[in-house]
Amino acid sequence: MPSLSLSDEERRTLIDAAHRLADVARRETLAHFRSAALSVESKGASGFDPVTEADRAAELAMRALLAELRPDDAIFGEEFGRRDGTSGLTWVLDPIDGTRAYMSGTPTWGVLIAVSDPSGPVLGVIDQPYIGERFIGGLGLAELSGPAGQRALRARPPRPLSEAVLFTTFPEVGTPEEGAAFRRVAAEARLTRYGMDCYAYALLAAGQIDLVIEAGLSAYDIQAPIAVIEAAGGIVTDWQGGPAHAGGRVIAAANAQVHAEALRALAG
Amino acid sequence: MPSLSLSDEERRTLIDAAHRLADVARRETLAHFRSAALSVESKGASGFDPVTEADRAAELAMRALLAELRPDDAIFGEEFGRRDGTSGLTWVLDPIDGTRAYMSGTPTWGVLIAVSDPSGPVLGVIDQPYIGERFIGGLGLAELSGPAGQRALRARPPRPLSEAVLFTTFPEVGTPEEGAAFRRVAAEARLTRYGMDCYAYALLAAGQIDLVIEAGLSAYDIQAPIAVIEAAGGIVTDWQGGPAHAGGRVIAAANAQVHAEALRALAG
Repeated sequence: MPSLSLSDEERRTLIDAAHRLADVARRETLAHFRSAALSVESKGASGFDPVTEADRAAELAMRALLAELRPDDAIFGEEFGRRDGTSGLTWVLDPIDGTRAYMSGTPTWGVLIAVSDPSGPVLGVIDQPYIGERFIGGLGLAELSGPAGQRALRARPPRPLSEAVLFTTFPEVGTPEEGAAFRRVAAEARLTRYGMDCYAYALLAAGQIDLVIEAGLSAYDIQAPIAVIEAAGGIVTDWQGGPAHAGGRVIAAANAQVHAEALRALAG
Repeated sequence: MPSLSLSDEERRTLIDAAHRLADVARRETLAHFRSAALSVESKGASGFDPVTEADRAAELAMRALLAELRPDDAIFGEEFGRRDGTSGLTWVLDPIDGTRAYMSGTPTWGVLIAVSDPSGPVLGVIDQPYIGERFIGGLGLAELSGPAGQRALRARPPRPLSEAVLFTTFPEVGTPEEGAAFRRVAAEARLTRYGMDCYAYALLAAGQIDLVIEAGLSAYDIQAPIAVIEAAGGIVTDWQGGPAHAGGRVIAAANAQVHAEALRALAG
């Protein structure tokens, strides 16, 4: 399906709204980050899926702002699900990607905000509130602002997989089969690192690393990274090279060459 | 061997010198962090041990400052080795702990600075230059300053190992035998996270996590964390409960209870 056509003014309005959403989420998430009273409950009986007060408060604050700024757009949020819209645009929200990082005090969680049309994400924000770092990409923009000021995002030029730096969040990477596929890539890469959640995608967009490979993602985990990485010249697909915006098995690559090498190794 | 006895003025002088060292290291390490021209060479034929320009520049800058401020103290630095002294105090320097994190753009590397007397470290600094966060502990001080301002460091109160959050840097954790011991603890812990280098020790001192377990450390990797964590009320030992300031197999714990539980699981 083709992308909606947006005027320059509409683009500016969307970018401004994305920044304002990230600002309110930053406030809500920082209010609880590293607080002694951090309240963690479990979403399900199996596994460990903490949801904090901050997660919910940040999504509610973003939804309230969208009701005011963008009443005709749809919303799909991690915590509070779907709200229908009429504009053809959907705001895809993950108020805290990396809740385990958040509850450990690690500054590598992020607020994920995407605007998607029927073809996929067109604008994305990865925000790290504690560091004060914001990665935004799409609608003509590809920019990092943070402690070192503002600069353009640009993914790395090609290098062989044997020279590449690979990230994933959990060493087991999903099912045993998925883990085995991941380890085939890791065995060929120069360096494999763990535990960064959405921050790994931000590093890829910023030209610092070559590959991120994960499995079991949800749409709200990956739509913002897709927009940011594509705006920086990178590629995000599923493990077969198809669209990744629905989540599942995802590979993000700095360029087509290392993407192709990693897809080959994943396929085994 | 008993600790050297230090006057209040001597303590203040040492704390001031530690801050000034961290300041110059911050400048040197940030000059190259995330730069496109980051030059990485390999220290040895086996494995992957990057040493950056920044690593050397930061240690040289600290050594130059020590020559001026503390000419009678000894120095033991990761990059440039030992300088003898006459005061009984040694500055133990790791200009970039987590060179792999540094070269990946991840803000979880740190500058480690310790002052040790013959009994072990008496003052330590863990500094994260990009975030602008400094953890300092010892000589009566236990303090974090960073984006959220300044606050006291205090390790977590006891909770059972089954509720504890455990960190390590590399999922394999040293030799196969060491890895197996680590996984016995991980199997009992609530949550295990990877990839944080010295930042994990800082999180422990800040009351965010319960355990850090690593193997194959050098003295300069652990002396600053020991001082910071002990000042915050935590415990750092080797895997048998003995002194850890020479490095090797290290366990840092928020309190005596979780330390004892983890030691038991490590022993198998």
